[in-house]
Amino acid sequence: MIGIKNIASYVPVAGVDNYAQGAKFEKDEEFILGKIGSAFLPRKGVDQETSDLCVEAANALFASNPDLKRESIDALIVVTQNGDEEGLPHTAAIVQDKLGLPINVAAFDISLGCSGYVYGIYAIKGFMEAAGLKNGLLITADPYSKIVDPEDRNTTMLFGDAATATWMGENPTWALGKAKFGTDGSGAPHLKVSDGVFFMNGRQVFNFALLKVPAHLHELLGESQLSADDIDAFCIHQGSAAIVDAVARRFEECPQKFIKDMVETGNTVSSSIPLLLEKHILDSEWKRVALSGFGVGLSWGSAIIYRP
Amino acid sequence: MIGIKNIASYVPVAGVDNYAQGAKFEKDEEFILGKIGSAFLPRKGVDQETSDLCVEAANALFASNPDLKRESIDALIVVTQNGDEEGLPHTAAIVQDKLGLPINVAAFDISLGCSGYVYGIYAIKGFMEAAGLKNGLLITADPYSKIVDPEDRNTTMLFGDAATATWMGENPTWALGKAKFGTDGSGAPHLKVSDGVFFMNGRQVFNFALLKVPAHLHELLGESQLSADDIDAFCIHQGSAAIVDAVARRFEECPQKFIKDMVETGNTVSSSIPLLLEKHILDSEWKRVALSGFGVGLSWGSAIIYRP
Repeated sequence: MIGIKNIASYVPVAGVDNYAQGAKFEKDEEFILGKIGSAFLPRKGVDQETSDLCVEAANALFASNPDLKRESIDALIVVTQNGDEEGLPHTAAIVQDKLGLPINVAAFDISLGCSGYVYGIYAIKGFMEAAGLKNGLLITADPYSKIVDPEDRNTTMLFGDAATATWMGENPTWALGKAKFGTDGSGAPHLKVSDGVFFMNGRQVFNFALLKVPAHLHELLGESQLSADDIDAFCIHQGSAAIVDAVARRFEECPQKFIKDMVETGNTVSSSIPLLLEKHILDSEWKRVALSGFGVGLSWGSAIIYRP
Repeated sequence: MIGIKNIASYVPVAGVDNYAQGAKFEKDEEFILGKIGSAFLPRKGVDQETSDLCVEAANALFASNPDLKRESIDALIVVTQNGDEEGLPHTAAIVQDKLGLPINVAAFDISLGCSGYVYGIYAIKGFMEAAGLKNGLLITADPYSKIVDPEDRNTTMLFGDAATATWMGENPTWALGKAKFGTDGSGAPHLKVSDGVFFMNGRQVFNFALLKVPAHLHELLGESQLSADDIDAFCIHQGSAAIVDAVARRFEECPQKFIKDMVETGNTVSSSIPLLLEKHILDSEWKRVALSGFGVGLSWGSAIIYRP
């Protein structure tokens, strides 16, 4: 059974002081910390491509897992909507070469935004099991600094650049339980790129998330014959402090189980959930954790992971 | 066990007379038919988006399978590197909406080129099995007319627009057997888009395909304890007549088992293999078929499908 063995990440050291950026838009510290949730937004270097962020995260994973050999990797999926090139080739092929992985690796990109990690772990697990593969890398890297207009007050205070690499293999430390997914393309215009610039209708996206995510998590628990009491922690996409808080309040018995950690990262798109898992879950004593990602598409996905 | 239940396609009626186009580049009919392989190259309308081609193929699938209900679809993957929008949202979300599929569908795009169908059938099978989904659509649509320069003699005589839709589900008509995959990102520059225009180093790509594909298929057969005698037909990516013929000649005992059918379609990227399956395999008496796709990345994948 393929599952999560370990996670590593790369968060650029350089970035934007979000208090200073907020001041430019007449937003005070209470707004920046309380509503946005991020005092600092990491930014990749101008010379760093998306594949370079992937390589940094994967190399961190290799460094922290000496038993994981490059030559043993046979699957590689990159979750991104801001890859290196204009559509083709896929970023995963470039990462295969830059990482020095063997050429018998099965590599492709998955195009998803903030829901991408939840989809991605099931996509790579399933693909590996269907194709008989043994050691996979699921990499998330979606640097919105490529597309966000620094003059757009609706988006420039929100997003941070980061990448994560998840080792998927046999004898996992966390197994994948039940999952549920959803897509509503009628909301696609609320989050999109036009002429190279990202547009977000923040109110529509907030309303979508607050309408969908708590209900989706409750359905997932119900269909799993579980209650919120059975979940040790909730790791949901860190869209903003406001949305994490609002979703948590819909779980009246345990809002404190919703992990919020984005002060130094911002909204890192598909990297937000694996960043939480790496920092708060992997080495914890917890047994069962619920995930939920939501965003571009509109798209959402929720899942339960557990100690096998 | 999830496998292939049925396939339908959409090939635009309008297109380019390739003999006339060849004459422009001083290429005669022998070259167009013998080397390129296509007398006609279908072209989507200027108002047709990639998602519209997907919708046409999926609607053809619904029309020919009255027992497949839209409301039963719970997985949707679009294989494309030329989607509707600039990176985000993903085309699969737009297709979900245009097809009127339920919002509980799990939808994403896979970024792969001519190897995409072979990867795609394993990706959707595995994802569906990992996530407990029952009826999936794997759609291929990669209209190169969006990116090919009509003045580029290396590419404009090769590619045709098309889309296919494969119904994946339980009790398949064709099951997925052993598969092998490969990626060599060092060859990425041989097939790429720059400033919106597609570039291909035809000689490098031909040499890559001729070096990799026959050996890969032979390895797959060997690892499956099969010989070419056990395979009823080979459906490989229809890159050009020249490459299909050259690969077939590397199977001295049975070059005639390599199906070549691109006279009216051209190289339809990830749609070429499912177009062959739809027309020549699904309703055949054959029991075991080998597939191989190869292209952008560089990326390749080979698989055996069989009657369960």
